[in-house]
Amino acid sequence: MKLKEAYSKDEFLKQLKVIGNLIASQIDTSKVEPEQLTYPGFDTAKLRRNWTEIFATDNSIESILNEVVIDSTKLHSPNFMGHQVSAPLPLAALIEALSAYLNNGMAIYEMGPAATFIEKLVVEQVAKLVGYTANAGGIFTSGGSIGNFTALLAARQNKLPGNVWQNGYANLQPAVMVSEQAHYSIARAVQMMGMGESAVIKLPTDENFRVKTTEFERIYAEETKNGKFIFAIIGSACTTSTGTHDKLIDFANFAQKHNLWFHVDAAHGGGALFSSKYKKLLQGIELADSVVIDFHKMLLMPALATAVLYKSEVHSYEVFSQKADYILSPDSLELDYAHRTLECTKHMITLKIFIALKVYGEEIFEEFVDKTYDLAREFYRIILEEPNFEAAHIPESNIFCFRYLPSNAKSDAEISEFQIKIRNQLLENGKYYIVKTVLNGKVYLRVTLMNPFTESEHVVALINFIKSIANKLNSNE
Amino acid sequence: MKLKEAYSKDEFLKQLKVIGNLIASQIDTSKVEPEQLTYPGFDTAKLRRNWTEIFATDNSIESILNEVVIDSTKLHSPNFMGHQVSAPLPLAALIEALSAYLNNGMAIYEMGPAATFIEKLVVEQVAKLVGYTANAGGIFTSGGSIGNFTALLAARQNKLPGNVWQNGYANLQPAVMVSEQAHYSIARAVQMMGMGESAVIKLPTDENFRVKTTEFERIYAEETKNGKFIFAIIGSACTTSTGTHDKLIDFANFAQKHNLWFHVDAAHGGGALFSSKYKKLLQGIELADSVVIDFHKMLLMPALATAVLYKSEVHSYEVFSQKADYILSPDSLELDYAHRTLECTKHMITLKIFIALKVYGEEIFEEFVDKTYDLAREFYRIILEEPNFEAAHIPESNIFCFRYLPSNAKSDAEISEFQIKIRNQLLENGKYYIVKTVLNGKVYLRVTLMNPFTESEHVVALINFIKSIANKLNSNE
Repeated sequence: MKLKEAYSKDEFLKQLKVIGNLIASQIDTSKVEPEQLTYPGFDTAKLRRNWTEIFATDNSIESILNEVVIDSTKLHSPNFMGHQVSAPLPLAALIEALSAYLNNGMAIYEMGPAATFIEKLVVEQVAKLVGYTANAGGIFTSGGSIGNFTALLAARQNKLPGNVWQNGYANLQPAVMVSEQAHYSIARAVQMMGMGESAVIKLPTDENFRVKTTEFERIYAEETKNGKFIFAIIGSACTTSTGTHDKLIDFANFAQKHNLWFHVDAAHGGGALFSSKYKKLLQGIELADSVVIDFHKMLLMPALATAVLYKSEVHSYEVFSQKADYILSPDSLELDYAHRTLECTKHMITLKIFIALKVYGEEIFEEFVDKTYDLAREFYRIILEEPNFEAAHIPESNIFCFRYLPSNAKSDAEISEFQIKIRNQLLENGKYYIVKTVLNGKVYLRVTLMNPFTESEHVVALINFIKSIANKLNSNE
Repeated sequence: MKLKEAYSKDEFLKQLKVIGNLIASQIDTSKVEPEQLTYPGFDTAKLRRNWTEIFATDNSIESILNEVVIDSTKLHSPNFMGHQVSAPLPLAALIEALSAYLNNGMAIYEMGPAATFIEKLVVEQVAKLVGYTANAGGIFTSGGSIGNFTALLAARQNKLPGNVWQNGYANLQPAVMVSEQAHYSIARAVQMMGMGESAVIKLPTDENFRVKTTEFERIYAEETKNGKFIFAIIGSACTTSTGTHDKLIDFANFAQKHNLWFHVDAAHGGGALFSSKYKKLLQGIELADSVVIDFHKMLLMPALATAVLYKSEVHSYEVFSQKADYILSPDSLELDYAHRTLECTKHMITLKIFIALKVYGEEIFEEFVDKTYDLAREFYRIILEEPNFEAAHIPESNIFCFRYLPSNAKSDAEISEFQIKIRNQLLENGKYYIVKTVLNGKVYLRVTLMNPFTESEHVVALINFIKSIANKLNSNE
């Protein structure tokens, strides 16, 4: 009987040893610098063959999991400066095992008594950091895209006339205003809601990729005249490409004047609320009707763990249907999350955050934010002094975009092509992981300094490595 | 420096010991029967006080996690017969720790090379079980609600005229046909899309809560005449309340005739594909355009792990925007999941499934499905012989609804009230966990036999316990 074996304590203890040792060994090796941190060359045909073979043949757990680690991207390497995903706290990863084992769903309170109250306490602590009052509240959900969507569903129900949940849009042309630099999940949310592409009114940005808030009234008047019913405005804190923070106070004032829902996508930048040095970047966030913060970005948690916070908790009941007026919010309703999240089975998202806050305190998040934000500024200063490099913007968070200017390049297109070549060489080599982005039609190299052990020496080494690649590329041309 | 401590190997090894031992001890104790498997009495005020105090005071990880376990619902107890959430394989829970530590996002292939191919292989294996050809494909997502929503977004884009993603609904009144017994996530998905409540056309069911497929043409003609543009029909395999399977072949034929998208919500029942004895319940599923299967229900995985499968993989690119005709599906597009899932950061959902399939094989799922489905039939037979009990339906899966008929009850309302009293007493006591449901306006007790170690002796003991509660309630009246 397979079941009996699979649920035996002895079997578990053996597996614990294998998996525990594997993670432990990674903790040590990944911190050592010149590691192959990505799959060499990203050879997809070879990977497909490897894994098809592993799946088809007989192997021990140990050998399979070793292969998994080898073929995974090592976020814990100080040379990982790629996407906005954390190198999670080992403790948080371990807590996931306990959460998964307990598997207490949270659609209704009954199913996860401890998990429900733990989530409430974490939400309260984060809401306080946002600057919200005791009226605030919220939930955790599986990721920032779903978080932004959830908040916009609440916005839709709250701000559109009639009852959209019941009756749809009728002849209304609902729309939202959002930065042209906003994360794609905002436009996607609007389009999932069936409003079409023109419902996403893109706000132009300045030379540092910040929304020009002086354009608000002109755009609003124009779009309204064209028949749009604008019901929400969304600020980025910060933008994905360059880590730029919108002027949230201007957004709040504008929203109040026109009775719009003000949402802040602080998926990345929300972590700075823990930093007394950098929280000023988020000034005005406390005026937002809703805020999204990804704990799997700047708060050291594994994916997915996203806080969706509301200035007035009662709005969170509007996501699916009810207008606030109709809500009495009895205790049972308040404790059942199914009325407020997309997820019917909601797993124990917040236990790991609760434990991290208990064990390490808010200071660990502050330390991490300060360190990585500081480092981006240092990166910028280094680039300024490098003759062949150009900064795309002044960094505000731990995201920074730049490019290499080859001496023999003639056009913007050639320069863009050169960045792609550099990045491809970096990936082929596998020692560093950075990404690219497009700004005003030009390709830039982009780093997000997400690793707690990346120091300026790693940044300098990366820049030197890029120079050596560029030199080779130049001499080949 | 907190960060240095938190990322140290020694610290991790200490934490591993605490958490490993805690889970190990649970594996043993939860199998022993007369355990307090829910929080005693669900006293919310007391829980709130407890957790507020724990959060505010200084405790060791060990003591906090012990409290977490005490105040959580123990799904691994054989007396847990409540919601449709698995008592996960200990190995799967452990793998979550590794997945979380590696934290390889899968929006783009680069970020999770191993994870991407592992997911592909798992999808292929499950698609084969569905009866799909090599054209099939799909993705995993965070939960069945999001899974159903994803499939319906594809349906919308594929079947509505024009380009909805671009232009919205214009003057169309889109609608779907679905069982009145379907899971609420279907109606919710339609309403999230902004189609309003009337877009959910409810199909009537027979005495066993199965859709009356003979009504299809009448309803379709009527609704179409009233201006509705029906674009999809959804079958339940099985329904949530009673575990009833719709006649999928009738759905498929009807969908084909009227050019509708045919979606099957097999969140719960999809597990039976692993069983040669019970897979016949799912006959016709291979004709569906899309299928959703929750691995955290009948496939022993922790939440959330949902397969969204498409008969033609190319449809999965239509979820967000593109019509199939425009898709060339180059390798890079096929390997990047961001074009196909709500989740931009997508965590390593399938590693635990891959490992379970490798280590225990498909047999373990077959054993589990057979055992729990068989047991529901036994439960039903026992109830038939109990004079004061009444079955609500003939069970098809491992879900079964019944009620106790008190001798002195006069009205249906009184009988319903009595079921609620019984359940409240069960929860107060904490030895068993079952739920309630409403069928045709009447309250029933409901069990889902989800634990691999629930035997007929536990079922008999539960029934006897209910009888003793009922006797006490009767004598108090």
